Amino acid sequence: MSFQNPVFIPGPTNMPEVLRKAVDMPTMDHRSAAFADILQPALAGVKKVLKTVAGQVFFFPATGTGAWEAAIANTLSPGDRVLACRNGMFSHRWIDLCTRFGIEVEVVEAAWGEGIDAARFEEILTADKGHAIKAVLATHNETATGVLSDVAAVRRAMDAAGHPAMLFVDGVSSVGSMDFRMDDWGVDVAITGSQKGFMLPAGLSIAGFSPKAMAAGETARLPRCFFDVRDMARTYAANGFPYTPPVGLLNGLAVSCGMLLDEGLDNVFARHARIAGGVRAAVHAWGLKLCAARPELWSNSVSAIRTPEGFNATDIVTRASSEYGMAFGTGLGEVAGKVFRIGHLGMMTDAMALSGIAVAEMVMVDLGLPVKLGSGVAAAQERYRHGAKAAQKKEAA
Amino acid sequence: MSFQNPVFIPGPTNMPEVLRKAVDMPTMDHRSAAFADILQPALAGVKKVLKTVAGQVFFFPATGTGAWEAAIANTLSPGDRVLACRNGMFSHRWIDLCTRFGIEVEVVEAAWGEGIDAARFEEILTADKGHAIKAVLATHNETATGVLSDVAAVRRAMDAAGHPAMLFVDGVSSVGSMDFRMDDWGVDVAITGSQKGFMLPAGLSIAGFSPKAMAAGETARLPRCFFDVRDMARTYAANGFPYTPPVGLLNGLAVSCGMLLDEGLDNVFARHARIAGGVRAAVHAWGLKLCAARPELWSNSVSAIRTPEGFNATDIVTRASSEYGMAFGTGLGEVAGKVFRIGHLGMMTDAMALSGIAVAEMVMVDLGLPVKLGSGVAAAQERYRHGAKAAQKKEAA
Amino acid sequence: MSFQNPVFIPGPTNMPEVLRKAVDMPTMDHRSAAFADILQPALAGVKKVLKTVAGQVFFFPATGTGAWEAAIANTLSPGDRVLACRNGMFSHRWIDLCTRFGIEVEVVEAAWGEGIDAARFEEILTADKGHAIKAVLATHNETATGVLSDVAAVRRAMDAAGHPAMLFVDGVSSVGSMDFRMDDWGVDVAITGSQKGFMLPAGLSIAGFSPKAMAAGETARLPRCFFDVRDMARTYAANGFPYTPPVGLLNGLAVSCGMLLDEGLDNVFARHARIAGGVRAAVHAWGLKLCAARPELWSNSVSAIRTPEGFNATDIVTRASSEYGMAFGTGLGEVAGKVFRIGHLGMMTDAMALSGIAVAEMVMVDLGLPVKLGSGVAAAQERYRHGAKAAQKKEAA
Amino acid sequence: MSFQNPVFIPGPTNMPEVLRKAVDMPTMDHRSAAFADILQPALAGVKKVLKTVAGQVFFFPATGTGAWEAAIANTLSPGDRVLACRNGMFSHRWIDLCTRFGIEVEVVEAAWGEGIDAARFEEILTADKGHAIKAVLATHNETATGVLSDVAAVRRAMDAAGHPAMLFVDGVSSVGSMDFRMDDWGVDVAITGSQKGFMLPAGLSIAGFSPKAMAAGETARLPRCFFDVRDMARTYAANGFPYTPPVGLLNGLAVSCGMLLDEGLDNVFARHARIAGGVRAAVHAWGLKLCAARPELWSNSVSAIRTPEGFNATDIVTRASSEYGMAFGTGLGEVAGKVFRIGHLGMMTDAMALSGIAVAEMVMVDLGLPVKLGSGVAAAQERYRHGAKAAQKKEAA
Repeated sequence: MSFQNPVFIPGPTNMPEVLRKAVDMPTMDHRSAAFADILQPALAGVKKVLKTVAGQVFFFPATGTGAWEAAIANTLSPGDRVLACRNGMFSHRWIDLCTRFGIEVEVVEAAWGEGIDAARFEEILTADKGHAIKAVLATHNETATGVLSDVAAVRRAMDAAGHPAMLFVDGVSSVGSMDFRMDDWGVDVAITGSQKGFMLPAGLSIAGFSPKAMAAGETARLPRCFFDVRDMARTYAANGFPYTPPVGLLNGLAVSCGMLLDEGLDNVFARHARIAGGVRAAVHAWGLKLCAARPELWSNSVSAIRTPEGFNATDIVTRASSEYGMAFGTGLGEVAGKVFRIGHLGMMTDAMALSGIAVAEMVMVDLGLPVKLGSGVAAAQERYRHGAKAAQKKEAA
Repeated sequence: MSFQNPVFIPGPTNMPEVLRKAVDMPTMDHRSAAFADILQPALAGVKKVLKTVAGQVFFFPATGTGAWEAAIANTLSPGDRVLACRNGMFSHRWIDLCTRFGIEVEVVEAAWGEGIDAARFEEILTADKGHAIKAVLATHNETATGVLSDVAAVRRAMDAAGHPAMLFVDGVSSVGSMDFRMDDWGVDVAITGSQKGFMLPAGLSIAGFSPKAMAAGETARLPRCFFDVRDMARTYAANGFPYTPPVGLLNGLAVSCGMLLDEGLDNVFARHARIAGGVRAAVHAWGLKLCAARPELWSNSVSAIRTPEGFNATDIVTRASSEYGMAFGTGLGEVAGKVFRIGHLGMMTDAMALSGIAVAEMVMVDLGLPVKLGSGVAAAQERYRHGAKAAQKKEAA
Repeated sequence: MSFQNPVFIPGPTNMPEVLRKAVDMPTMDHRSAAFADILQPALAGVKKVLKTVAGQVFFFPATGTGAWEAAIANTLSPGDRVLACRNGMFSHRWIDLCTRFGIEVEVVEAAWGEGIDAARFEEILTADKGHAIKAVLATHNETATGVLSDVAAVRRAMDAAGHPAMLFVDGVSSVGSMDFRMDDWGVDVAITGSQKGFMLPAGLSIAGFSPKAMAAGETARLPRCFFDVRDMARTYAANGFPYTPPVGLLNGLAVSCGMLLDEGLDNVFARHARIAGGVRAAVHAWGLKLCAARPELWSNSVSAIRTPEGFNATDIVTRASSEYGMAFGTGLGEVAGKVFRIGHLGMMTDAMALSGIAVAEMVMVDLGLPVKLGSGVAAAQERYRHGAKAAQKKEAA
Repeated sequence: MSFQNPVFIPGPTNMPEVLRKAVDMPTMDHRSAAFADILQPALAGVKKVLKTVAGQVFFFPATGTGAWEAAIANTLSPGDRVLACRNGMFSHRWIDLCTRFGIEVEVVEAAWGEGIDAARFEEILTADKGHAIKAVLATHNETATGVLSDVAAVRRAMDAAGHPAMLFVDGVSSVGSMDFRMDDWGVDVAITGSQKGFMLPAGLSIAGFSPKAMAAGETARLPRCFFDVRDMARTYAANGFPYTPPVGLLNGLAVSCGMLLDEGLDNVFARHARIAGGVRAAVHAWGLKLCAARPELWSNSVSAIRTPEGFNATDIVTRASSEYGMAFGTGLGEVAGKVFRIGHLGMMTDAMALSGIAVAEMVMVDLGLPVKLGSGVAAAQERYRHGAKAAQKKEAA
């Protein structure tokens, strides 16, 4: 493994040098006062990134799956009912997790490539006169299909239905890469992880809980200990942690938040949009289509690309790895073999994106797809080169 | 924070250079074939360290608390009964976790400083004719009190009672530092973490499951998803992971196992015994007593040291940190203020141990305890210097 | 500075992860026995890379300039005469260094873009009946112009002239990237550095001395101390160093040699030829010309690319840095403003090279050069994709 | 090699975590504007550490030996005369270097353990009516004997003699650890390196040149190129470097200066004095003597310790390494076998120093010296513990 090439999996992302160094800490006493200097900036930083003032932030040494579990276990009781949309592998898995915890899930099935059908949610919620539905689950960015759903629309649907359910949002592959507004959207539990927009190694779950979600925890009867936010809240108040914290990752998170906020969240999102725009331009130049059904669903963190009928999209990923040492994402579940994925989130540059596009092109030509070498690259370059200041000035003149 | 001094907390331990570098990995595609080269050596290595052939090993991006939860959630059902001894903070917390999960715990209370009373266990198990007790919980090394319990004796008690309960052992602060024999002792779930004997950062739970524990999972009804060992077993078989794995920690674990096995487990244990012996010699030279009630309970990974009546032991820890930049452990729970702890596990050297002893001495003198400067150091040196080959030859001559 | 993009300067090169870790060592006692385990593999490895059996290898904590000085100072006396060809900035600087040391240099001027004129050397050496010329200086790869000269031809010229002069070769940007044969070519002093083909940070000069060069040192009267190879030879024999050695760089060098030899020098050279071939294909697709006058002079470690009359080539480098965060090399000396340079030596991959080509393209289009986006990339891809095994099989079928 | 223990060689010193990370940089383009952000803070920082306003600072990728050579080569001509005192191995080597460069050295021999005899210097300079002596060489801290000479006294002697010679001072093992005043003492060339008080890896020579020394360079006729300060001055002015700079070391140096200046030079010196005081207290408790003849010569960066007649002091170093994994320094030259050395410069803590003292004690007892275990440690603890604020307050009360 040479590590010379960037990765194009949709997370874990490429890590900036400064974050690798922030994570790689010598052992320190996590019960000492020095821990506060790591914990508090991480908490404050994540609150800003999630755009929440009212919410409380919690960290678990775990992954996104653990954060899903934390959301459920801290707020619900066996037999509770939730509403969710299944439009990809990750929304599916969260539904599966709920089921394992004895939660009844009313599933709205959507084509893989579609977003959450807020109108259908509104119908169901309106019909739920007895408010049996305790929570609505929304996967903001379906990493499996590269589909960004409209969480604000889900919130509007809930409000239109006058329904008091909580709103839980999986922002694992959106937070830090695309706009996320916990308070504005009335999100009760927001979930993410260290290894996507925060550009850190995997191993840290991040969750924001609204006061309403915290209150729900008082009566929730699902068992919890490792993921118990009450223990977290209590120990954080004393600059502690309920068990041994992953200090290096927390330190990395504090530094990562600083990087994102220094760049400016809007700039970070614009950068992701620009990079993603180039990748999509390449896809179109190749004569291929995105899995995401419509432009308003296009994700700026990952593109799932459909390959022609009869072609195994996974061959692209396999060959890119074996022949060119480059990692893309395969299709998962229903779209296995039908799509391959290019992750373009985190600290990606134009140059890095172009290398990924160029390799994908070579692989597709190697495998006999009717793609012209250089075509996707040229389309992406056309997008990327406009970012240059001098050129812009020239154009303006 | 200068990081110049070693830490003497009972974990996370000081990290060898080679392990820090093994953990600090660039991003790689965890779905690629390269992941097998990390996962499989880690699994094989941990099996050797746990001394199990029959067991299966699982890794969770979590901590010891997560591993406790994994043990319970994968094997038990709400209302099940377990037997446990409370002789310190960590055994207490495991009991508390069980209670939160709706498990009834028959608690054998022991003085903090005592070990597990195997005879009492035998009485209770013998009396449990109906085999209502599904599992016996044993904390091998009580990190809070520096007490090593005799797990083999617990197994003998269970066998003498002819009781079919499973045996769950918390080896968080013993595995890799003191002898642990999963198969010989009939351990059904063995639990540990990355940040103690394995000398890695916190963030990885390690669990060994016997075939009996795996079988129990088929009917166990506690909810589980993040900690589900069936998902783990299924995905490991394909060199995968049920969610995003903490690749760097797993790579570090593979390298750590290699280090331990290259040194030889018996040599590793002897080294811990030697270092611990020096610390205990210092304690006695200071006129102080260990919290562990009897020599056969003395832990080789951590020493909890009782301070005189009326003295707040926590002052030692506070002052060592503020004035000398050195981290020791405070007393927890029932022994808070009564003991301070010196962790001496992991890749500790004689020289490092002597620096800890020397600082502890200065702090105690600063605080007015009747300790003679150099006295503990001299007692420890007397132990350590015998390790020298030339001196041994001289003695042999 | 984000460090996200690879660099395309002709050294220091991009560093493989494993070499960065090898260099980043904790302090060790360089007078201890452990130093031998670093020094000896580095010496043995470099001998293999230089392809010398008879020569002795020396390391100085310095750069290529220091190695030039070491070559001169250890073998010549004030007033000695040497023969050299000036065909670029680096050959010029070596000549300048000689002049500063009181050496008379017979300079053969060549166009910047031409190689060493071995025929002219033969004429001059044949005419030097009195053997006043003590050494012939050859810059194997002129980094400023991307010109590879034929050192074997220089040796043949010397032999044809029956001239006993020593042959000193600057292989700073060739060794480890293109074939170099110290013994076969009768090289008396071979010079290189850590930061090019060895893929390490700058800071280590590497020199190979033939027995003849060592013998010359006995009577040479130029002053020397820091660069004295006799002190080096004497201390190496005892696994020491005449002063404090740069231990991390030496350790990195030992590991680097292992990497190069494990890959196989022929494979390393073929890889460089392939990558360079793609860059040159791009240059031609852009309608531009290399500074190197003829294909047999093309360097596989760096390409200097001529831009059209009236265009300032340095603008490309400036804009690539400011707008795209990518580093190329400017033209130096006579070709300043006339060429820009793409370094493609060290652990470069196809993907990395394509990102450099793609950025160069964008910059040239931004600056109004008549270059078509994607054109150079496509030309390079056509070269690179043939490296793929499956494609090769297809072609073979 | 475990790297678990600190080193006690008199340089390279133990490296703070933050400096290791500052040095371990990815490749950057040293010809880009970003280089200024490294070079300029390093230059400005070193000027403050050297306490010079008038002087110019230069960096060479070399070691102290290189800096000696730079001092001579940039200021003197063959046949020039200098005055120097030989009182240890490093002053001897500088004299030897001068001789190799054709400089005549008037050597004042002093016992190894004595400092520079300023009175004798004054006599010689007064007698040199013709001002044949061009420079006075002073080794501020003789690393071989642990002797600190009084440079201010040397300057007073020169002034009293009314002699215009330049003053060159080797501050390799004093700068950054003990007071050094380039301007106040009228130092014309001040020399140091990265691997001592600056706590960095070896590989960077640091030199400060006064305007007088720079002016001397205009007529000096010793050959120079790699070490030519005029090339340095010219390229620095454009934020460049005459050849490839060791960027990581320069970055580390900038950060190191920041650390030293943040702590405050006076505090840094006081810390070194305190640590050294503890080591010396231990030496006296062992019944041993320092090589440095009188208290006013005691160095705060290294202690050379005389062992009894008939005992080979090097055995201590050998055994400490082989049996306890700890590095001390051997005696060099005239004091080989007669002294061993404890380096205590750089970011040493009380705890680290105590571990070194404790190991030295064990080794001496192992080897049969009449040393009492714990005795030296106790003496050092008595010194170190007074540093504690709370204790001081108690004492004050």
